[in-house]
Amino acid sequence: MRKHGVAIAGAGFIGPVHLEALRRLGIRIVGLLGSTPEKSRAAALAQGVEKGYASLDELLADPDVTAVHLALPNVLHYEYCCRAIAAGKHVMCEKPLAMNSRETAELAALAARSNVACGVAYNVRFYPLNLQVRAMIRAGELGEIYSVCGSYRQDWLLFDTDYNWRVLEEAGGKLRALADIGTHWLDLVQSMTGLEIERVVCDLQTVHPVRQRPKGEIETFSGKNKPAVDREPVDITTDDAAGVLLKFAGGARGVLDVSQVTAGRKNEVSYEIAGSKASVSWNSEKPDQLWIGRRDQPSELLSRDPSLMAGEVRRYANYPGGHVEGFPDTFKQLFRAFYDYIEAGDFRAPATFPTFADGHREVVLCEALLKSHTAQSWVEVPR
Amino acid sequence: MRKHGVAIAGAGFIGPVHLEALRRLGIRIVGLLGSTPEKSRAAALAQGVEKGYASLDELLADPDVTAVHLALPNVLHYEYCCRAIAAGKHVMCEKPLAMNSRETAELAALAARSNVACGVAYNVRFYPLNLQVRAMIRAGELGEIYSVCGSYRQDWLLFDTDYNWRVLEEAGGKLRALADIGTHWLDLVQSMTGLEIERVVCDLQTVHPVRQRPKGEIETFSGKNKPAVDREPVDITTDDAAGVLLKFAGGARGVLDVSQVTAGRKNEVSYEIAGSKASVSWNSEKPDQLWIGRRDQPSELLSRDPSLMAGEVRRYANYPGGHVEGFPDTFKQLFRAFYDYIEAGDFRAPATFPTFADGHREVVLCEALLKSHTAQSWVEVPR
Amino acid sequence: MRKHGVAIAGAGFIGPVHLEALRRLGIRIVGLLGSTPEKSRAAALAQGVEKGYASLDELLADPDVTAVHLALPNVLHYEYCCRAIAAGKHVMCEKPLAMNSRETAELAALAARSNVACGVAYNVRFYPLNLQVRAMIRAGELGEIYSVCGSYRQDWLLFDTDYNWRVLEEAGGKLRALADIGTHWLDLVQSMTGLEIERVVCDLQTVHPVRQRPKGEIETFSGKNKPAVDREPVDITTDDAAGVLLKFAGGARGVLDVSQVTAGRKNEVSYEIAGSKASVSWNSEKPDQLWIGRRDQPSELLSRDPSLMAGEVRRYANYPGGHVEGFPDTFKQLFRAFYDYIEAGDFRAPATFPTFADGHREVVLCEALLKSHTAQSWVEVPR
Amino acid sequence: MRKHGVAIAGAGFIGPVHLEALRRLGIRIVGLLGSTPEKSRAAALAQGVEKGYASLDELLADPDVTAVHLALPNVLHYEYCCRAIAAGKHVMCEKPLAMNSRETAELAALAARSNVACGVAYNVRFYPLNLQVRAMIRAGELGEIYSVCGSYRQDWLLFDTDYNWRVLEEAGGKLRALADIGTHWLDLVQSMTGLEIERVVCDLQTVHPVRQRPKGEIETFSGKNKPAVDREPVDITTDDAAGVLLKFAGGARGVLDVSQVTAGRKNEVSYEIAGSKASVSWNSEKPDQLWIGRRDQPSELLSRDPSLMAGEVRRYANYPGGHVEGFPDTFKQLFRAFYDYIEAGDFRAPATFPTFADGHREVVLCEALLKSHTAQSWVEVPR
Repeated sequence: MRKHGVAIAGAGFIGPVHLEALRRLGIRIVGLLGSTPEKSRAAALAQGVEKGYASLDELLADPDVTAVHLALPNVLHYEYCCRAIAAGKHVMCEKPLAMNSRETAELAALAARSNVACGVAYNVRFYPLNLQVRAMIRAGELGEIYSVCGSYRQDWLLFDTDYNWRVLEEAGGKLRALADIGTHWLDLVQSMTGLEIERVVCDLQTVHPVRQRPKGEIETFSGKNKPAVDREPVDITTDDAAGVLLKFAGGARGVLDVSQVTAGRKNEVSYEIAGSKASVSWNSEKPDQLWIGRRDQPSELLSRDPSLMAGEVRRYANYPGGHVEGFPDTFKQLFRAFYDYIEAGDFRAPATFPTFADGHREVVLCEALLKSHTAQSWVEVPR
Repeated sequence: MRKHGVAIAGAGFIGPVHLEALRRLGIRIVGLLGSTPEKSRAAALAQGVEKGYASLDELLADPDVTAVHLALPNVLHYEYCCRAIAAGKHVMCEKPLAMNSRETAELAALAARSNVACGVAYNVRFYPLNLQVRAMIRAGELGEIYSVCGSYRQDWLLFDTDYNWRVLEEAGGKLRALADIGTHWLDLVQSMTGLEIERVVCDLQTVHPVRQRPKGEIETFSGKNKPAVDREPVDITTDDAAGVLLKFAGGARGVLDVSQVTAGRKNEVSYEIAGSKASVSWNSEKPDQLWIGRRDQPSELLSRDPSLMAGEVRRYANYPGGHVEGFPDTFKQLFRAFYDYIEAGDFRAPATFPTFADGHREVVLCEALLKSHTAQSWVEVPR
Repeated sequence: MRKHGVAIAGAGFIGPVHLEALRRLGIRIVGLLGSTPEKSRAAALAQGVEKGYASLDELLADPDVTAVHLALPNVLHYEYCCRAIAAGKHVMCEKPLAMNSRETAELAALAARSNVACGVAYNVRFYPLNLQVRAMIRAGELGEIYSVCGSYRQDWLLFDTDYNWRVLEEAGGKLRALADIGTHWLDLVQSMTGLEIERVVCDLQTVHPVRQRPKGEIETFSGKNKPAVDREPVDITTDDAAGVLLKFAGGARGVLDVSQVTAGRKNEVSYEIAGSKASVSWNSEKPDQLWIGRRDQPSELLSRDPSLMAGEVRRYANYPGGHVEGFPDTFKQLFRAFYDYIEAGDFRAPATFPTFADGHREVVLCEALLKSHTAQSWVEVPR
Repeated sequence: MRKHGVAIAGAGFIGPVHLEALRRLGIRIVGLLGSTPEKSRAAALAQGVEKGYASLDELLADPDVTAVHLALPNVLHYEYCCRAIAAGKHVMCEKPLAMNSRETAELAALAARSNVACGVAYNVRFYPLNLQVRAMIRAGELGEIYSVCGSYRQDWLLFDTDYNWRVLEEAGGKLRALADIGTHWLDLVQSMTGLEIERVVCDLQTVHPVRQRPKGEIETFSGKNKPAVDREPVDITTDDAAGVLLKFAGGARGVLDVSQVTAGRKNEVSYEIAGSKASVSWNSEKPDQLWIGRRDQPSELLSRDPSLMAGEVRRYANYPGGHVEGFPDTFKQLFRAFYDYIEAGDFRAPATFPTFADGHREVVLCEALLKSHTAQSWVEVPR
């Protein structure tokens, strides 16, 4: 039995995803924190969780809580992370880690000095076949990496009547599609290849400079089921879509397309990595299948079958081959890595999960991408 | 918060699948029962469950237990079901419900007279798009059903060195591939179409009349990772594969191929249903995508996106479109249906899950299939 | 330059397919024969062919004609074959070879005694990857064959307003879907595996016992583009669809579904062959890709790339990998094999194309399938 | 019967592709021109063509020749085009039209003043579903175009031992992967969307700055089958791969990846076009299937079925749905458009095929792409 006691702050789309994944691991959820004491209590009751906290203070003061999951709007991440670390709690924060690189640098430094584990929820790394690709690349099975291309596409913001707090610069930050979903891809490919991005050129696109905001609140992804409502126009300055060219340390190049306005793509992350010996291609809408491209022999389709995977990643594939593991399972595996690390107790050991340093790196990258777009030129990514 | 207290009997491949799915729903697991008191305690400790029962008696005597999940070898199902019902516990039994139709008829009758809910774990029904197909057929969107074709294929018993208790007639019953996996398909298509199977012709195949049994025990699906061991030959009389033709009430026909010896098919259930207006095709290895075939307009690909699904099945699709839900999620949804039904409290209401009557029907069908093979002729399925 | 002079009899859907394929090979088309002298002349003019024959007599008397292609209604095959062989012309006949096994036996015997080459246009064999599968099986790469499953599905006869001469028993024969398309599949799998079918059980289905016939003539596949017309009801006794179980010599079993009423399947032939070492799966709608299933290593996707194919079949793949070769190319390759054989001049050498003996075998098989359906029982296929 | 008499200059990979496609249309091939009189005669004999010309002079002097197809190294295009036009022959030239925009501007002007038809062989436009996309976009079915993303990937130059004349700057030009295959994609998407590319940023990559050249000659695509040979190192300055961002007139953006070094991608062109109403996605390795993405209803799969296609493009789909038409068929349709246009006789009518103006535009674009790479900045594409 795991000894942790977890509190989750944030009850939107992603909070319950954390809750369910933690429960699968047998990890105890001590309490929830919503945006008001009433919402906290209501969420706790709805989810069958013991406590609904009145405030972050109350949450952090709870001695049963050993770790805090932050699944709330981006603007709150910095403060909540600081206070949770100060309170000696382990922290698993949703991405992006904070609103700018000054904040994330501070958080990364704080994490490095602390005696707690600090992670960022880049769950896409934890599709088992992505871990497999990482293992293959480390073992040299792809040879030298030549290029890393791909996309992250959704359609839930296609129409100008689609709305969510994330579209507003003041709530989510200047970058939206790139920051919300593009950074998953960027984190993923850097994590798999071990290659840092050194230079970027970026072209942002806002297809709806004005959106029709419903009067009232709308959850992420939930707008499509809602009836027509009263609306008011709101100016949009964040990106609906973006194209990016990348240069990696060592000479590999990259191409990325990100869009939240591509009809029919519900939530599709994909990549194609070409190496001197073989290439690999993967798509999150068929997550249990990895295409391995070969030149002088047939290409391969690797199933997420533990018996066919690299030894060190097999533990993250819990069901036999053919029993598809999907999106919810990635959070389970991310948290498995995180809490196993905590239980091992050596917080100077190499992390097996995305760290605050990774979260900082992503925000630095986003700032470079924005700068590139503004300047309409290639820019260096600061180290 | 759900009020149930569940005990799970059986700790092989499928027991932990039940455990994890129940936890996702916030349902309390009170205790586990293994094949010995020691194994019970070890499993409880490993899984972080409170109690490891010394015996079924102890389990059934536990007032905290309101429902029992049976995930143990087929030969034990009948006795355990009888005793659990007698003890006033709700029962969720793995398939097949029992070893023969005399037993299953008795169990179905017992369930009908009891004041508990009795279900069989035909989880494949609960892939959200299978529920969607059921809704579409009921709404007439396919028109008259002409044919129902498909297959269930695996490869984990391909080689004569592959072994598991299920290959032995005395442990699993005379039918194996058909009973273990074929019945999932048969239950699924009857559930979706609402059509009963009236006549069958069946051709069983045992490609390995002798298998090399490892000395010691082997879990389902786990053999592929194991090192070579000492082995002894054992005669096999159960089917590795089977072909079946079906006639449904009302005139539809069916074709089924079942195999546990098809290299590369890890666990693939698929069907293609042709109707007078449209057809549908689905494959469990890409579970979030339904092909809808059309004649005079483009065919369609329906994503498991709640906003695109029929109202009555939307609640079984918990994540937004594109966030793939896989095999583990089917157990969550099956148990959601089961425990929602229990909470509603009216055990005479139409079941929203596979019942003991369904489980009985499957065993009757299996006996007809075996009879057809033995006689090498078409046979009627008794009603 | 090839020396042949070819005449084509029949100007429906498939005649022009022959014409185009012959031209790709640089084979001279001397003349065409339609159903009337006027139609012959009109077709010759439209296609840029030198002669439009007034009659079969005139065609057979033409010394420029060395080979005849028969692409006309099934009822004419027997007579035309006999007369062409008697006239010393090589014959390439569309399938089925004739209306019954008495006729086909006679034609096969006639061909065996003749000094001309006689082929049947089972073009599906000539998708390059099907030739590759044949080579792989002969080389033992699949091991012992366990099962051969598949389907051939179309939708052009889905509605009762769909009509073509083939639906009438008197024009096309008692069997329709099975004979027209099912035999392509049956010929293909026997050709690839080298295994003969010994026993069958078959279930025929006529979903429209009455169809609405347009007044006037309708070409194969062309009905879908036509405007509404005057119609009259006509009784249908031929099969719209069928299910079949097969037993092959040596113990392999088979499952086949054939349908001309599956919405959305325009013309899809597929198979899955499971062997003791590997399995293969192919689908004519993605003809340049072969899936090779493996148990203890990743499965493979073999591209129709000459550099990756077996030496003896490479010549039938004319374009580099990735440059898809489709349906029209199969006729080119079939005729390449046929005319290369003729040029080699040894008509006792093993045929590299489907022979009249193969065509006879298919008709014998069809009669067994019909008998099985009528008797509702397994039947032996006569040798 | 078509009245044209065609001569083909060039007998490498693509010359015979032209030959075969012309024959399918019933167009007479009068003669061939190789790199020497001997090679001309040998090619004519091998292909069953009447004449093998000793020189371009002899070819152009032949009154039977009404049209010339140029399928020879890029450096010869300019001169041959000029002389053919001067001789009053229609010209179908392989891409790129010439070595630089000065030459192509001159050729485009020459063509505009001439009384012959002048086309460039951008065959990819003529996959029937690409014509369908063009028709859909013109009819407004996608709404406003937001983005055009895609790739063209091959693997035949993956290893440093892969060699062909195209890799040398002096033979093929400074750009290679982008010019050879990237321009197919760029022509295709501009043709389909009707949108011109205004600004580009480009990143070229040469993964093998030195290749090992076999002593002797090597045909395009043929190296993979050849045995090891003596080799000598040769410096390579052309691009193996490239990434590009695009801005289209009107605001759409684009992302393109081009590579001849992606293992397992034999010859894969793909695109995804996102519009305000719907998106489309297509891949040349499955050419008969178009994905149409939709937000509020199921996405669609459109088969290349004439009965489902737009009226004006139906004539370019010659076989019924499900009978896959592939790469060879695109040349047939391109030439059908070209010779139908010639037969119509109005050379001021809008062209139905890619013109010299299109060919010029592609070379201008290539020069802008090269300039962007050299300057490492965005550049305007001159009009």
